[in-house]
Amino acid sequence: MHQQVHVRIISPITTTGFRTDIDIKSLEAPGLVVSATQISKGPGSIESEYEGAMAAPDTIARIIEAEREGVDACVIDCMGDPGLKPSREAVTIPVLGPCNTSMHVAAMLGHKFSVVTVMRRLLAQFENAAALAGLSTRMASARSVDIPVLDLEKDMEATRAALIEEARKAVEIDGAHAVIFGCTGLFGCAAAVRQGLLGHGIDIPVIDPIPTAVNTAAALVRSHLSHSAHTFPLPPRKAMPGYDMPDLHTVAAE
Amino acid sequence: MHQQVHVRIISPITTTGFRTDIDIKSLEAPGLVVSATQISKGPGSIESEYEGAMAAPDTIARIIEAEREGVDACVIDCMGDPGLKPSREAVTIPVLGPCNTSMHVAAMLGHKFSVVTVMRRLLAQFENAAALAGLSTRMASARSVDIPVLDLEKDMEATRAALIEEARKAVEIDGAHAVIFGCTGLFGCAAAVRQGLLGHGIDIPVIDPIPTAVNTAAALVRSHLSHSAHTFPLPPRKAMPGYDMPDLHTVAAE
Amino acid sequence: MHQQVHVRIISPITTTGFRTDIDIKSLEAPGLVVSATQISKGPGSIESEYEGAMAAPDTIARIIEAEREGVDACVIDCMGDPGLKPSREAVTIPVLGPCNTSMHVAAMLGHKFSVVTVMRRLLAQFENAAALAGLSTRMASARSVDIPVLDLEKDMEATRAALIEEARKAVEIDGAHAVIFGCTGLFGCAAAVRQGLLGHGIDIPVIDPIPTAVNTAAALVRSHLSHSAHTFPLPPRKAMPGYDMPDLHTVAAE
Amino acid sequence: MHQQVHVRIISPITTTGFRTDIDIKSLEAPGLVVSATQISKGPGSIESEYEGAMAAPDTIARIIEAEREGVDACVIDCMGDPGLKPSREAVTIPVLGPCNTSMHVAAMLGHKFSVVTVMRRLLAQFENAAALAGLSTRMASARSVDIPVLDLEKDMEATRAALIEEARKAVEIDGAHAVIFGCTGLFGCAAAVRQGLLGHGIDIPVIDPIPTAVNTAAALVRSHLSHSAHTFPLPPRKAMPGYDMPDLHTVAAE
Amino acid sequence: MHQQVHVRIISPITTTGFRTDIDIKSLEAPGLVVSATQISKGPGSIESEYEGAMAAPDTIARIIEAEREGVDACVIDCMGDPGLKPSREAVTIPVLGPCNTSMHVAAMLGHKFSVVTVMRRLLAQFENAAALAGLSTRMASARSVDIPVLDLEKDMEATRAALIEEARKAVEIDGAHAVIFGCTGLFGCAAAVRQGLLGHGIDIPVIDPIPTAVNTAAALVRSHLSHSAHTFPLPPRKAMPGYDMPDLHTVAAE
Amino acid sequence: MHQQVHVRIISPITTTGFRTDIDIKSLEAPGLVVSATQISKGPGSIESEYEGAMAAPDTIARIIEAEREGVDACVIDCMGDPGLKPSREAVTIPVLGPCNTSMHVAAMLGHKFSVVTVMRRLLAQFENAAALAGLSTRMASARSVDIPVLDLEKDMEATRAALIEEARKAVEIDGAHAVIFGCTGLFGCAAAVRQGLLGHGIDIPVIDPIPTAVNTAAALVRSHLSHSAHTFPLPPRKAMPGYDMPDLHTVAAE
Repeated sequence: MHQQVHVRIISPITTTGFRTDIDIKSLEAPGLVVSATQISKGPGSIESEYEGAMAAPDTIARIIEAEREGVDACVIDCMGDPGLKPSREAVTIPVLGPCNTSMHVAAMLGHKFSVVTVMRRLLAQFENAAALAGLSTRMASARSVDIPVLDLEKDMEATRAALIEEARKAVEIDGAHAVIFGCTGLFGCAAAVRQGLLGHGIDIPVIDPIPTAVNTAAALVRSHLSHSAHTFPLPPRKAMPGYDMPDLHTVAAE
Repeated sequence: MHQQVHVRIISPITTTGFRTDIDIKSLEAPGLVVSATQISKGPGSIESEYEGAMAAPDTIARIIEAEREGVDACVIDCMGDPGLKPSREAVTIPVLGPCNTSMHVAAMLGHKFSVVTVMRRLLAQFENAAALAGLSTRMASARSVDIPVLDLEKDMEATRAALIEEARKAVEIDGAHAVIFGCTGLFGCAAAVRQGLLGHGIDIPVIDPIPTAVNTAAALVRSHLSHSAHTFPLPPRKAMPGYDMPDLHTVAAE
Repeated sequence: MHQQVHVRIISPITTTGFRTDIDIKSLEAPGLVVSATQISKGPGSIESEYEGAMAAPDTIARIIEAEREGVDACVIDCMGDPGLKPSREAVTIPVLGPCNTSMHVAAMLGHKFSVVTVMRRLLAQFENAAALAGLSTRMASARSVDIPVLDLEKDMEATRAALIEEARKAVEIDGAHAVIFGCTGLFGCAAAVRQGLLGHGIDIPVIDPIPTAVNTAAALVRSHLSHSAHTFPLPPRKAMPGYDMPDLHTVAAE
Repeated sequence: MHQQVHVRIISPITTTGFRTDIDIKSLEAPGLVVSATQISKGPGSIESEYEGAMAAPDTIARIIEAEREGVDACVIDCMGDPGLKPSREAVTIPVLGPCNTSMHVAAMLGHKFSVVTVMRRLLAQFENAAALAGLSTRMASARSVDIPVLDLEKDMEATRAALIEEARKAVEIDGAHAVIFGCTGLFGCAAAVRQGLLGHGIDIPVIDPIPTAVNTAAALVRSHLSHSAHTFPLPPRKAMPGYDMPDLHTVAAE
Repeated sequence: MHQQVHVRIISPITTTGFRTDIDIKSLEAPGLVVSATQISKGPGSIESEYEGAMAAPDTIARIIEAEREGVDACVIDCMGDPGLKPSREAVTIPVLGPCNTSMHVAAMLGHKFSVVTVMRRLLAQFENAAALAGLSTRMASARSVDIPVLDLEKDMEATRAALIEEARKAVEIDGAHAVIFGCTGLFGCAAAVRQGLLGHGIDIPVIDPIPTAVNTAAALVRSHLSHSAHTFPLPPRKAMPGYDMPDLHTVAAE
Repeated sequence: MHQQVHVRIISPITTTGFRTDIDIKSLEAPGLVVSATQISKGPGSIESEYEGAMAAPDTIARIIEAEREGVDACVIDCMGDPGLKPSREAVTIPVLGPCNTSMHVAAMLGHKFSVVTVMRRLLAQFENAAALAGLSTRMASARSVDIPVLDLEKDMEATRAALIEEARKAVEIDGAHAVIFGCTGLFGCAAAVRQGLLGHGIDIPVIDPIPTAVNTAAALVRSHLSHSAHTFPLPPRKAMPGYDMPDLHTVAAE
């Protein structure tokens, strides 16, 4: 049995200082070690399909590195789950996206869930993610506070108040029974938002995607499970001009 | 933080000796303690809606007791998830059904999953469970080996061979990318079935529902999550002639 | 041909005096006899999954008795349809739940239907019932008047006004084309609610579930139809400690 | 209360002698009178969308006449349900199509149903009918015996054998738990087909659409229900060159 | 290759003067010739299922004539797509309905679409059309301006203002990302409505169904595609008393 | 009006010589000019999610260039539609993916469609594409001939025979009414495959995705339509270290 499970968080953005050591350490538990890294090529933050696409190649590279270093599982640190499917083809350790994971966990916990995210322009992406997860009938709504990712921490009081307000509307208007944060930049706000909702008499789970995905990744490792090689088979060996990617077949042979 | 998480497995059948201490201990891990109990009123095993209904009242009682004893989470030890929704109304600690949990985990891991269960008569129940989970589009099929629950261990070799055969058909005919055991009596067979499938060149996750649900329960506790009180509100105080159930409102007030 | 069809109404609650002889007689018609009984073990009323689960065992027992007494069909007198599936496994005469029956009848009559029930906490149950019936796309909404079951008759004027108001919102806001009462305690209010809606210029069917289910049960008997033994096979013979249930296999052999 | 309910069967084909008086009388029961008529303009039988479209105008005219004559409900005698929606706009008495009605009744009785029809070319129509009914997830399959409508009675033995064979495949291959005849020309074969299936150990409902629709129509009348005027509002007054249709607004005013 | 593609527009209404030569010519383009005709038997306009059914026979006749005259494709000039399926059985050239075509084009262009139509009574028809197209999950809503078809041009300013207002609500309240006109009588208003929406800061496609269907028909012809003879097989040869329809089999043999 | 429409085909692979001038010219028609280009950074061919992700950045760059050069619409030359959504955010001219376009066109033409592709590993991608298009209920199946993309032309006879065989199974076993080629490397085979199917008595549309998408793109331009800026808003201005992408905001301002 894995006495110690090592989960690596991969931030698919080039802005530095987004995750502190304290954040990362707060995710650890008995038998669970957490580390973090980030990409060096790609967008400063991700608020569009375009930025997600530009983030994917280096995110995949970081995940391949993690597997080679003996990490047990990876979590991609963005609710767009950029690079999730391609990186699963490239490695055999579990790779989790916080969006996909949180949606399934929310569906386990209550009748319907809503996602409360940062920007209105992301709402369709969450509806698509739910459709691919098979969970469209379980999503009550996607809502936004309309604050850009890198501004979330400028006025945490205002951010939290906006989250509580949209979560309240998700429950009272849209029929949500649980709420998922729609941006991993909101990490650490769940207790405050849950408290704020209780102040309105609303007692529902508030899902903080990064801790949820990290703990689910550890649960998979302890259950001896990873993604299906039938869904995510190793790509054929092929040249890739313009990129300096590792030879996936060498990796697989190790 | 919970340094130690205590998960209780509740067997909703009156047949004794179904779970050994060795089985239960094998589920433990650093920071995770597992205990087990079972009902004393109800069916000897569950292979019908009728038996599931008869098992529910005492299963709920055992789960209420577990919460009062300070257990952190409960897992119901039957793929019919008997008593799951009513017991969630009665307690605030997470209660997981292995069927619901395994389906969401399978959906996280691959494109489509199949359930391989014991008796043909249970197939519709699994299709209904997938529909309520929102996962009908992610279920490839439900299949059965046609061996009654209490006979599964009589010839483990034959049971495993039948599981491998039906799992293979699930992949090759129905398009499954992952397989879930459709009876918790199959606990412990996952490695052998996965090995058998690899012998046919099929590399997919084989989900053993009890370890999966126990580890997911621990992940929820560590993520400070439980089921939604909005979906599962405490029932009103009411007499219940013919049953000796605890006063739920006293429990809630403790 | 059945010259006379006998339908039995089974109330799955222990509160007495809920159904009067006048109520029951009003359901009769040429060729249709109606009788009624109720459970003696279980909840005083049903407003939760918990109470539904506690009502099921004795409801099943009453339905088995009805079949032995030569009754032609049974209707369970609660919109939670408690015990519907397990009791269908135990008998071969048609057993109908008013919720399932009313939803299919509503779907025959118009584009989309809404359920107007008593308590907000029941809304998710109706959404789940529609999902299992396959009718999610035909349900416009579930709404509640927020009056407990046993208080419905305290101020019938207020109850009817609240029903009309929620039914009106179901039509004007949610797009309903028909309305189903979401509690069998509302029996007898359909004409008044339909009249009230016509006063708002809204001409839609208002479905009173008990008469609808009783007449549908008679239609099934006259059409020589009952539920599928393929979906609801007889449970295997098995001890049931703690319960005094009839031997299902003896019944079946009669 | 309606002591006597009068249901009219409308055959939307111009071939005469299709329905005998004995057929019609066999549908009567205490409190239920049944009459029949047919169209004089349109196809000899219906095996295509084209023929269904050509049958609709005169079918609608017959249904308007039935309402004027005081009939309580109409049933259209074709599984294509030709003219169902337009005729519902033109009258206030219930009009039922045997396809739509049988699908909802089948869904009440078991997990999934199949339709066994005459010609392969009709299969897509049944899948579309199920989709509009909201019942796609409840339909296991549509199958055909490949015998034209007007040839069904030429060799009833062969017709019944073919029906039993396709129904058996629907159960064993497609997962059906109930079977609906996909042509009203198969009226009266249900008992023989059910018997044939029992000979294969298959105990499922076999739904004969005309008796099922007639009895359901009577149940609606006794429940004081008809289709929704919100879904099927009276058409505006308008000239209709080339057709000799009654003035719908005069009818409505009577 | 088809150097010149000829598309015929078939108006399924008997009111004359609805389409001007200028309208028709405005649809032409290099390599694309457009002609128009209309029915002589049937309703003056179509605002109900009843009128759609009465329009179908002569619409089918016009489409058969068009094929005999060497036209390359037909477009039915009504958002109810009357006669679409039956006429496809009768001819081999592409026949397009503007409703079905516009919904698929809208789905290609954005996340979700809404239909803005003339009368409230048509909303359910659009929801049914989306369901049959498989696009229910892509339709945000159907809305109406509540102006009868033949009054649309009485005050074009008011009509356009009402369209802009409902389209705005479709976007802001219902979540639409594209808008389809729900009546071909609105032909030519798309640029003005799109401009009006831009004035509200809303930059979405406004789909004018007739030009969209005509250009799509030409694209199909250039791609050597027509509807499937498997879905729309030629009807069997059969008498059709009361109608003077061409012999479809003679047509097919030509 | 656009007298001349210019459509650019973007090949998202680095293998040269894949598209000949003759191929490209064969797509032209009166009023339609077609040009082609390809990426220089990324995979040699695309047979995985991984290769699709690596192809996206340079594909997006080529599409931005096309818009700057005055091209009217772009078509991405791969059935994985790599870069479709992100590139739509970056430009305002229509960008079409052949997979998404062909699925909607197939759905216009018949009841259900199947995709016949090259490699088994791509099947789940097509099921996901159909789900996002909203067309899961319209897809009969995805099948593969199991020949790698760059080997397709090695033995065209064998490739065509394999396509005919899988298309035949799609029709006879899976219920397809139209077939889409699941790889743009099969360009030009449609007539031969359709002929082969006719030899089996199967008369269905065979959709060649590149001509279909090019002609649909021209139809959109002629209908003054492009993708929704509400679904695909311009990304915020942001640094993109490691990539040399154009400034999207400068482009937009031009």
